[in-house]
Formats: sequence, C-alpha cells, structure tokens
Amino acid sequence: MSKPRQLHLGAFMRPVSIHTGAWRYPGAYPDANFNFNHLRKFAQTLERGKFDAFFMADHLAVLNMPIDALKRSHTVTSFEPFTLLSALAGATERIGLVATASTTFDAPYHVARRFASLDHISGGRAGWNIVTTSNPDAALNFGLDDHMEHDERYRRAREFYDVVTGLWDSFADDAFVRDVTSGLFFDPSRMHVLDHKGKYYSVRGPLNIARPVQGWPVIVQAGASEAGKQLAAETAEVIFAAHNSLADGQRFYADVKGRLDKLGRARDSLKILPGALVVVGDTVEEAREKRAKVDSLVDYANAIASLSIALGHDASKFDPDGPLPDIPESNASKSGRERAIALAKRDNLTVRQLAQRLGGFGGFAFVGTPKTIADEMEEWLVSEGSDGFNLMFPFLPAGLDDFVDKVVPELQRRGLFRREYEGPTLRDHLGLARPSNRFFAPA
Amino acid sequence: MSKPRQLHLGAFMRPVSIHTGAWRYPGAYPDANFNFNHLRKFAQTLERGKFDAFFMADHLAVLNMPIDALKRSHTVTSFEPFTLLSALAGATERIGLVATASTTFDAPYHVARRFASLDHISGGRAGWNIVTTSNPDAALNFGLDDHMEHDERYRRAREFYDVVTGLWDSFADDAFVRDVTSGLFFDPSRMHVLDHKGKYYSVRGPLNIARPVQGWPVIVQAGASEAGKQLAAETAEVIFAAHNSLADGQRFYADVKGRLDKLGRARDSLKILPGALVVVGDTVEEAREKRAKVDSLVDYANAIASLSIALGHDASKFDPDGPLPDIPESNASKSGRERAIALAKRDNLTVRQLAQRLGGFGGFAFVGTPKTIADEMEEWLVSEGSDGFNLMFPFLPAGLDDFVDKVVPELQRRGLFRREYEGPTLRDHLGLARPSNRFFAPA
Ligand SMILES: Cc1cc2nc3c(=O)[nH]c(=O)nc-3n(C[C@H](O)[C@H](O)[C@H](O)COP(=O)(O)O)c2cc1C
Ligand SMILES: Cc1cc2nc3c(=O)[nH]c(=O)nc-3n(C[C@H](O)[C@H](O)[C@H](O)COP(=O)(O)O)c2cc1C
Repeated sequence: MSKPRQLHLGAFMRPVSIHTGAWRYPGAYPDANFNFNHLRKFAQTLERGKFDAFFMADHLAVLNMPIDALKRSHTVTSFEPFTLLSALAGATERIGLVATASTTFDAPYHVARRFASLDHISGGRAGWNIVTTSNPDAALNFGLDDHMEHDERYRRAREFYDVVTGLWDSFADDAFVRDVTSGLFFDPSRMHVLDHKGKYYSVRGPLNIARPVQGWPVIVQAGASEAGKQLAAETAEVIFAAHNSLADGQRFYADVKGRLDKLGRARDSLKILPGALVVVGDTVEEAREKRAKVDSLVDYANAIASLSIALGHDASKFDPDGPLPDIPESNASKSGRERAIALAKRDNLTVRQLAQRLGGFGGFAFVGTPKTIADEMEEWLVSEGSDGFNLMFPFLPAGLDDFVDKVVPELQRRGLFRREYEGPTLRDHLGLARPSNRFFAPA
Repeated sequence: MSKPRQLHLGAFMRPVSIHTGAWRYPGAYPDANFNFNHLRKFAQTLERGKFDAFFMADHLAVLNMPIDALKRSHTVTSFEPFTLLSALAGATERIGLVATASTTFDAPYHVARRFASLDHISGGRAGWNIVTTSNPDAALNFGLDDHMEHDERYRRAREFYDVVTGLWDSFADDAFVRDVTSGLFFDPSRMHVLDHKGKYYSVRGPLNIARPVQGWPVIVQAGASEAGKQLAAETAEVIFAAHNSLADGQRFYADVKGRLDKLGRARDSLKILPGALVVVGDTVEEAREKRAKVDSLVDYANAIASLSIALGHDASKFDPDGPLPDIPESNASKSGRERAIALAKRDNLTVRQLAQRLGGFGGFAFVGTPKTIADEMEEWLVSEGSDGFNLMFPFLPAGLDDFVDKVVPELQRRGLFRREYEGPTLRDHLGLARPSNRFFAPA
C-alpha cells in the first residue's frame, strides 16, 4: 500500500515577516532583525509544527526602493543566512535549514564549503536556494557597474552548480577510515581532485571538508523565467514558485513535471512549493480583519506608489476611501493591472485598501479558518496545483503561532501532514533520495 | 589604583588539535572534524576556563603536502569558520569567537556582512583574523593559475580593511528608531552610502545589516613579514604571533609596540598573543611523557621528511634511535637548522624523536606542571614578551581539560587571569575600546 500524498511545508522567512506592515502589528517584535532570540523562538515553533524547512531569503544589497519607502521598511537590515542558519542548527534538532546563495556574486568553492559545513553541523538538514540575484544594486556592491545579463546569469548558474556538486563529491562516503592503529586518516584512492576548467569557472579542488551528510544538501530553485524553469527541471529538488491562483499553479505544475518526464527524472524527485501568505482566524471574518489590520499599517504614500505602478496610472488623485474608479488601459503590465482590478472587486476594497494590500504583500494568500485553509490546501494537493507550500506569516510571532497551533492539527487530523518527523535529514522530510557520488560507487 | 596587568588567553583551534599525531592519542576524538558535538564541548570547556576567545584557523584548500603525508593528516577536512562559530555562538554565552577570513579570496561586502551578522547573533563576541592566505593552492580553487604576489596581497588587504570597516559604519548606532506609531523604521540621515572606488575594490554600500554590537568586530592579524607587521600596527587590535623563545617575543613586542607609538596609537590598544602549545602534567616528567607520547604518534616516514627539510640534509640515512650526528652546513634555512640542532640537544632527543617533534608541532611550547607553566607565563607577561597567549592543545579533550582544570586556577590564584568575565563582549574581555563610527558622531 503506497503512502497517501502529504503536504510539504516550508516557512519563507524574513526576521520580521515578509509583510512590510508587520513590524508595526500589535505584539510584533520590531527588533527581530537584530535579535537572535526571536529567530530562535520562530524556528523552534516551526519545528514544533513539524515544518519541512526554514527558508531564509537573501539579498546582497539594501532593497532597491525610494528612500521614503525604504525608511519605513524593516527589510533594510537582516541577518546573513549562513550565520543565522548555523546558529539555528544548534537551537533545533530536525527542521531543515535552507539558505539562499547567489551564483552571480559568490565563488563555488566558498558556497560548496559553507553548505557542506552547515550540513555536517546540522546533521544533514541543509538546503541551497540557488538564486542568480535579480536586484541590480547587488552588482554595485561587488565591483561591477552594471548587472549581468539575465541569460548569462543562468548559464553561469548551471556551471556553478556543476562545480559545487562536483566539489561535494570530492571524497567517497567511506574515504575517512581514521585507523588509529595504522595511522591512516583517509584512503587517498577515495579522494577525487575535480580539476574543473569551464567557460566561467576554473576550480581545482578537492573540497577541504568531507562529503555532506546528505550527500548533497537539497537543491532549491526559485527562477520563474524560461531559463529559470529549465535550470530547475535539470537541477532542483524543490521549486519555490509564485502563483496567483490554483489554475496558475496547475499550469506551472504540469509544465515543470512535464520537463522532468522529458529529462527522464522521476516526477516526485522535485517538489513544487508555491509561496503563500497564511492568515488564520477563528472565523473567516476575523482572519479578514487581521489581514486588513496589517495592511492598514503600510504607509499610504508608499502604497499608492505601488498601486500606480501596478495600474500604469497615477492613483494619487483617486479618492482613497472610494472604490477603484474605471481607468483607461495603458502600456503598463496587463497582468498586473488586471490582477489589481480583480482583487479590488473580489474583496470589495477601497483605493486605500487596495494600495495597502499591494504595498504590504501582493502575492497569493490563504485567509480563513483552520478548516477553510485546510480545505484549500487539500484542493491544491489533490488537483496537482502543488506538492505543498512555502508559507509566509503576516506578522510574527502571533501569525506563526496561530498556524502551528490551529491549522497544523487540522492538516494532521486529515492525514495531510506528518505528525512526527520520520528521519533526521531534510531529504527524509521531503522524501528525496540521497544522491550517489558521481566519482565513486559505494564500496 | 590601576588594575594589575592580566594575561589574555585565546585558544587556537583545529577540531582535532594542531598536533598532527593528536587524533591517534588515547581518548581523542578522531571524528572531531565531522562531529559538531565535540566542538561544542570544547567551546564550553574554554568558556568555563574564562578564555578570551576561540580562534578558528582557516585554509582555502586542502593543505599542500605530499599525498603520503596528507593521507595521515586530520587537517584534510574541517568545518568552515562562519558556520562553525555561529553554531558555537548558540552553545556559549561569553567567549569571543574569532574567524579567519581571507582578503585575497573573498569579497569585502560578504566579509563585512558575515562578521556583522555573527556579532549580532553572538551579542558582540565576533573577531576577524585577517589573513592574506599564504597557501598557493588556494589560488587554484578560485580561478587563478598562480598565487598573487606577497606585497600585492598586503596592499589589497589594506584597502579591503578600509572597505569592510567603512561598510560596518553604514548606519549610526542610533539609526534604527523603529517608531511603531509613525511608521519610521530608521532615520535616513543616519545612513551612509560608502561609495568606495579604490585601486582594487569598488563597493557602493550601504551594508544591509545594522552596525555590529561592538561597533566593529575585533581585528586580529597574524602576518610576520614587514608588510604584515605594518598592516597589524595600522589596523590590528590583536596580533597572533609565532616565536621560538622569550627573547624573540620581547624583540617582536618592542618592534610592534614601537610602531604603535609612531602611529600615535596607545600601546594597550593592540594585544600581542604568541601561539604556544601547552602540555600539562602533575610532574614535569609526566608532562614530558605526554608530549613524547603524542609526538610518537606522528608517522616516521613523514617526520623524517620534515627533519630533512629543516636540516637541509637527507636525514633518512641516520640511525633513528641514535643521537643527531654532526652534519655539514648547507644552503637550507640557517635558522631552521640551528633550531633543530638546539632542540635535539636541549631535550636530549634521538633522530626519531626530533623528527616526530618537528612533524607534530615544531613551534613554541610550555611543557610542565601548573606551577612551572604559570611561572613561565608570568615571566612573559611581566618582561614584555607578550600580553597573553593563543594556546594550542596537544590532544583533545584531555589536553584542554588539564589546562582549564589545573593551570587556570593557578593563574587565577596569582591574580594573573580573570575569575569572571567582566562584560558581555570580546572587546570587554580584551580591554579594547568600542570604535566610533567614522561617518557619524554619537547623537
Ligand atoms: C518566492 C520567491 C522567492 C525568492 N527569493 C529570492 C531571494 O531570497 N533572493 C533573491 O535574490 N532572489 C529571490 N527570488 C528571485 C528568483 O531567484 C528569480 O530571480 C526571480 O524569480 C525571477 O526569475 P527569473 O530570474 O527566472 O526571471 C525569489 C523568487 C520567488 C518567486
Ligand atoms: C600563529 C599563526 C596562525 C596563522 N593562521 C593562519 C590561518 O588560519 N590561515 C591562513 O591562511 N594563514 C594563517 N597564518 C599565516 C599568516 O596569515 C601569514 O600569512 C604568515 O604568518 C606569513 O606572514 P607574512 O604573510 O606576513 O609573510 C597564521 C600565522 C601564524 C603565525
């Protein structure tokens, strides 16, 4: 009897939440970007909720926004992922730890080594969210005048991945004999010198650390472009997607799983986890009120700028407390414009509310009771919209506590989510095989 | 009344010890390079012993030695410093955490950010051991064919340091107002965009993390050349030196402190901590036996190669169990040759013992009882040979336990070492001032 499919749940974290109004929410920790104790508490709560992984987003520059918006944004400062996740490794026992690392602005030897080290320190819980870094300001912090061209970034990413995984395979799993009597520490015939000389990278190796506990840390990818999806289909084991609706999710799911078929990869060797904000109430009404409350904490002047961009039309002249007026079509992104109009209609939002919604967190959201949220998640899972979710919380700690204390038990009751971790590693949680070593067959 | 001068003690760590025979010593952990639990225990023992800091050495390649020596060496694998020290931050409360990071093979933005993050996570306990990386094999792992020339490395290091410290000063200490009512997260007039454009680096900034708890993490330097000493005098707050005798130490101490005078820096703004192996016994005889025992675990074939290099003469023809024969002078390093001959004479060593001594750990060592070791350390301190030591243990955990349980109490009894940490930060332990922000006066 095969096990029924279950959801995989990641938590996509910024220390103060993804939502830009979150730090002002009653009971939130406005200092979470500077205070490790809060982060430790969040990770421990996620582990209590049996989450697959704590995902740490990352940016290699202060986010690129006008100073009047920036000065109101908690995103200006954050912990660096490797230092944060290593510290969290010591404060947790089972939850996976996924760090974002850029293939455009770091060296493969460093990246391979840090992930291997995190994997050893955490007992096999590391994952690498491969990004090519889209923020053009990052280039200016790394000696470049301009951002590297998009497809060039992805070509480098592919080679970078080959080098990193090759370095992880520097030693066979059984290389380290540590024979105290003879004095042999490792068997040199079980060490491989990579000697990579490619178009972009030249890296000799071997890596100066043993093969990771998981063989390779779990490979995660978030690219949305054609090049991004293809890189994911070739290399990723988890995709972190962004969709607006179940129908979008199903299209993406079919697209990517179809690419796996073509590549001869098993469909369940890659889990698709769309990002979703999750706002929990005891009634649907209460959940909507919480959402409205955190949205209302987004500064209106900044919010109206976001709305104007989405609409391709200056929204600052509209009555903030009236409904969205009819506006002529423009050259702006058609999909952004249509989404904004549909959102205002569906949730009956004023101009102010719509602007603050988009300025706070404009992406996909579950807003409801434990039962309605579990219903929706179940529908995504059974109708092949996703293999789970990468969840974001509207404010911390309460938004996270609500999910773990109320929604997780409902998912468990339905058999949709684990009650206990089955193994110690992130690969165990995700049901992913341990990769074999490309240079050494098992002894 | 001014406080009497006290010793500062760091522990210079590799997971299995510096000594190449250590992993074979009875009771040692041959798997410490892969097992974080051992490292946690070492750090907690050092903290119990009130050490100033845990220093993590680092190399960006497998150490450059013939495969027949390498296969017997535990140095082939190790944890990466940032991941290790961040994990140790969570397992300790007071001890300083000094990571080695290279100015030749990393980017200033990454280095600034990781140290700032470690400093926030640890509550102000981070230090940066600035190295220019002398192992030529590192270059091959980072896309270069040849190692960069020595003085060029130091010129880059100086500019690298300016960029990193400038990035740490991106925000005034009081920049983050986090005013929930008005929605102002930080005061933009208290943020500085570095806009560095130098000979080697071009880095815009600001850093995307708040100013470190210590203002700047403590700056440590280990260079021994003229360029290295001058960089240290200009920038370092701790020097990690390597001497063969108290007289050497005094010369170095006078040289470097004299450079501080010329630069207008206070003499106690830079602490000089020579490296020293420390082997503790209940009698001097017992300490010597422990040392002989760990030396005897060094493979003889490798050891004799080290001795031949030191002597500039093939030592493999000598009777291993006889005394060192007279040998003609050669073109080899005169100082290495003289040291080897003097060592054999002083400790009455056979050829085998001398070879294994040099192959295990050839540097300066305290070998004796708690009383004789405290006597020697006191002499170094009062005669201006050093401000303390960066200690290495011949084997772990026992060599470390012996020092903390037996020598530390003796030093404390004499008033030469703290009984309690006085403050929470590494700067507090070392008696170093918190640097002011170069762009912002305190509010
Ligand atoms: C949900 C999600 C999370 C992402 N997180 C990060 C991140 O933490 N850091 C980053 O540089 N890029 C991040 N990205 C950006 C992606 O890496 C990628 O650049 C973006 O999705 C555009 O895709 P494309 O580059 O394939 O066009 C994220 C993207 C998505 C969809
Ligand atoms: C006690 C001691 C410890 C050192 N630790 C490291 C280290 O961990 N990593 C490294 O690359 N170099 C290390 N070095 C090397 C120094 O950074 C430096 O390259 C070496 O002392 C030669 O000095 P010079 O470069 O000024 O000639 C160490 C040196 C000493 C004396």
